[in-house]
Amino acid sequence: MFNKETYIRRRNELKRLVGNGVIVLFGNNESPSNFPNNGYYPFRQDSSFLYYFGQQRDGLVGVIDVDNDTETLIGDDIDIEDIVWYGSVNSVSNMASEVGVAHSAPMKLLTNICNDALRAMRRIHFLPPYRFDIKLQIFDLLGIHPNQQKESASMDLIKAIVKMRSTKDAEEIEELERAAVIGYKMHTTAMRLVKPGVTEKYIAGQVDGIAHSYGSMVSFPTIFTQHGEILHGTPSLNKLEAGKLALCDAGAENMMNYCSDNTRTMPVTGKFTQRQLEIYSIVETCHDYALEISKPGAKYFDIHLAVCRLMTDRLKELGLMKGDTEEAVRAGAHAMFLPHGLGHMMGLDVHDMENFDQINVGFDEETRPKLEQFGTNCLRMGRRLEEGFVVTDEPGIYFIPALIDEWKASGHCKEFLNFDKLETYKDFGGIRIEDDILITKDGCRFIGKDLIPYHPKDVEAFMENN
Amino acid sequence: MFNKETYIRRRNELKRLVGNGVIVLFGNNESPSNFPNNGYYPFRQDSSFLYYFGQQRDGLVGVIDVDNDTETLIGDDIDIEDIVWYGSVNSVSNMASEVGVAHSAPMKLLTNICNDALRAMRRIHFLPPYRFDIKLQIFDLLGIHPNQQKESASMDLIKAIVKMRSTKDAEEIEELERAAVIGYKMHTTAMRLVKPGVTEKYIAGQVDGIAHSYGSMVSFPTIFTQHGEILHGTPSLNKLEAGKLALCDAGAENMMNYCSDNTRTMPVTGKFTQRQLEIYSIVETCHDYALEISKPGAKYFDIHLAVCRLMTDRLKELGLMKGDTEEAVRAGAHAMFLPHGLGHMMGLDVHDMENFDQINVGFDEETRPKLEQFGTNCLRMGRRLEEGFVVTDEPGIYFIPALIDEWKASGHCKEFLNFDKLETYKDFGGIRIEDDILITKDGCRFIGKDLIPYHPKDVEAFMENN
Repeated sequence: MFNKETYIRRRNELKRLVGNGVIVLFGNNESPSNFPNNGYYPFRQDSSFLYYFGQQRDGLVGVIDVDNDTETLIGDDIDIEDIVWYGSVNSVSNMASEVGVAHSAPMKLLTNICNDALRAMRRIHFLPPYRFDIKLQIFDLLGIHPNQQKESASMDLIKAIVKMRSTKDAEEIEELERAAVIGYKMHTTAMRLVKPGVTEKYIAGQVDGIAHSYGSMVSFPTIFTQHGEILHGTPSLNKLEAGKLALCDAGAENMMNYCSDNTRTMPVTGKFTQRQLEIYSIVETCHDYALEISKPGAKYFDIHLAVCRLMTDRLKELGLMKGDTEEAVRAGAHAMFLPHGLGHMMGLDVHDMENFDQINVGFDEETRPKLEQFGTNCLRMGRRLEEGFVVTDEPGIYFIPALIDEWKASGHCKEFLNFDKLETYKDFGGIRIEDDILITKDGCRFIGKDLIPYHPKDVEAFMENN
Repeated sequence: MFNKETYIRRRNELKRLVGNGVIVLFGNNESPSNFPNNGYYPFRQDSSFLYYFGQQRDGLVGVIDVDNDTETLIGDDIDIEDIVWYGSVNSVSNMASEVGVAHSAPMKLLTNICNDALRAMRRIHFLPPYRFDIKLQIFDLLGIHPNQQKESASMDLIKAIVKMRSTKDAEEIEELERAAVIGYKMHTTAMRLVKPGVTEKYIAGQVDGIAHSYGSMVSFPTIFTQHGEILHGTPSLNKLEAGKLALCDAGAENMMNYCSDNTRTMPVTGKFTQRQLEIYSIVETCHDYALEISKPGAKYFDIHLAVCRLMTDRLKELGLMKGDTEEAVRAGAHAMFLPHGLGHMMGLDVHDMENFDQINVGFDEETRPKLEQFGTNCLRMGRRLEEGFVVTDEPGIYFIPALIDEWKASGHCKEFLNFDKLETYKDFGGIRIEDDILITKDGCRFIGKDLIPYHPKDVEAFMENN
């Protein structure tokens, strides 16, 4: 937890930005896996609750009455039987004072607070819920059916929180650096273990183990696969095969739930083939180019497009694409290879604030995009970079057999794609290189003091020596 | 997945037992962690859905129309954009035929099926939901508020499923044995890593890693702690200290989601102290005694009480308890040391079928217990054992400072407890030894070909040699 001054400052700023009404920030509850008690997933606090109220326990709600300038932490204390099972825990009133909140109250008071506010026709600001228990809670408290809750959520609250959470201050950057240390251990563990005959699942499990040993959990389900072309592929029981590439996309949340998110792609044998190197070096160039041109004031959508053009140029040299580069990118032909955006915001969520929708987080009035085009529809981040933003830089090139077949059959972008050559890459897989970058005063830098090897020579050297 | 014949046989038996109406078995959906898409916990299918419909995908519902003897697997097929992200997956109709189900239909048909059944005043059997998304689904389909759903769930369906899932057949036992192999690796990994200076969290993380590497997930959140007296304690960042005991309660789910669940308690230095040995040997004796007397026909509540009496006798020898053993156990004095039941059913859930409530799973008309007494209120399993049952045998002795203080202050069971001596054990921690046992024709046996060392000499030898 940060010092209480941090949370006080943040809540004061939030009150200023929201201006009026009652803000209700629901903390998360336990999330059942296959039965109601004990059968839980690891507890994960809601990120906005964490940002303003800092406490990690389940069953808490933070209430900020903007009009009356009062703050209350709501939650029930646990009793002796719970202590036997879970150990003694902080009282709710203690938890409140640890984060500079003057009042605390049991859960039943939340109903009164909501009823009073509704009766007085005051605005109740809540966030669009993503967990179903919270949807039910809002339904019971405010009478809004879960299907209508997203529309009823407070856009003022969303805007204020996005404004605040987008820019990471020094103490947050320190936490992100800590997460990166764990991420480094995860990825170098994978690199050490990769060799023919080992299962994808074995390596993914060991990577997860590092996150659990040093952090609070993985920041998203670990991707470790020889099918890098499946963007969110699950590790399988298949054994690694010589000649293939293995893609590892993994990250940790540190104990404060700040995230890391990196991707490396490595040859199963430890040595890239010539064909692999040709594609890899394009991704590497794109990755480094994004790093070169990312700085305050630059639109991330423009950086994305610049990378797409560079990728198209290079794919033309290989004979996989053809025609005019500008036109090809405008038509979305590059999305055959790169069907996702260059990156996304990162912080307390690995896709930071994605519960508010990419349109409210990664875009603004100026950059409100047309998100219909395949590939651009999951761009995630397009607006101008600012100092203190943390984004991922993650270009990739994938050969997706189903997509090749579909576009070939429909003739989509046929003037920019060489389908005959594409056919010969159907067994290639996919390559992605991803790092987390902090936008600085006049440019950007990697998050992570030790950089996970990604230049081909470095990857090969690491795999040979470890 | 088992052969389709297994699922056909199971559903036929279920139809016979339930007798009439429409059975709706909801499969689980993805469970969001901190944002709605990608921010997921690992997918865990509902165990009863798995038992009758076998398929691991999210977003499926199994419908069994008992009156008309038709079966339908309901779910939406995924489209090309999903294939890019998640790879190509089986069609719902294919998934249906893999488990011998004749019909398949898109999700929107479920509304029709439910409406038709409601209109015809037919019984719709559903299980008490434990996930909030399913509660919402039932609310929207059947108009029953989540708070009333538990009472509206079908007791006939619960009884039929409990009857079937309680007895494990040969192919299920094979899966449980596979889970035990992973459990063995988890526990011996912990034993290898334990030494002063290592953090609890580090070891717990490595134990988790084994489950992820070889199975589908942990069967419950791994407990690894020097505070064994906190029954469901979370691994902390504290370092292991010479002279303390470390308790490891952990298990895996294999790829078919069958579980393992074992506990070992080991000395941080690799050598038990005399005081630790005295308590450990009582737990060991109780553990072995339960194994000796567990057999078909024996009530597990009686076995629990027999163990409690044995424990009381031995604690009297140590001067921690006093008075008449029978009376002490009747008064619940032993619950100062053993505040939980001897064990629970185990299978597709680590607390098998706990979503149906312990009263419906671990008890029957004959053994319906008074569950008010502290300790007995979480007994979990009391009914007569039958061949094919799998239960845990997990006695423990804990010294819980908060409980000692409370009982001492109130004088609760003071005629059976030596509070002065108890005071000197407040720094002791807790010991539990847990194994999974299969009830055989005339007795029982351990699940797990390789037994995780638990006799003190074996633990010490393993820790010295590994």
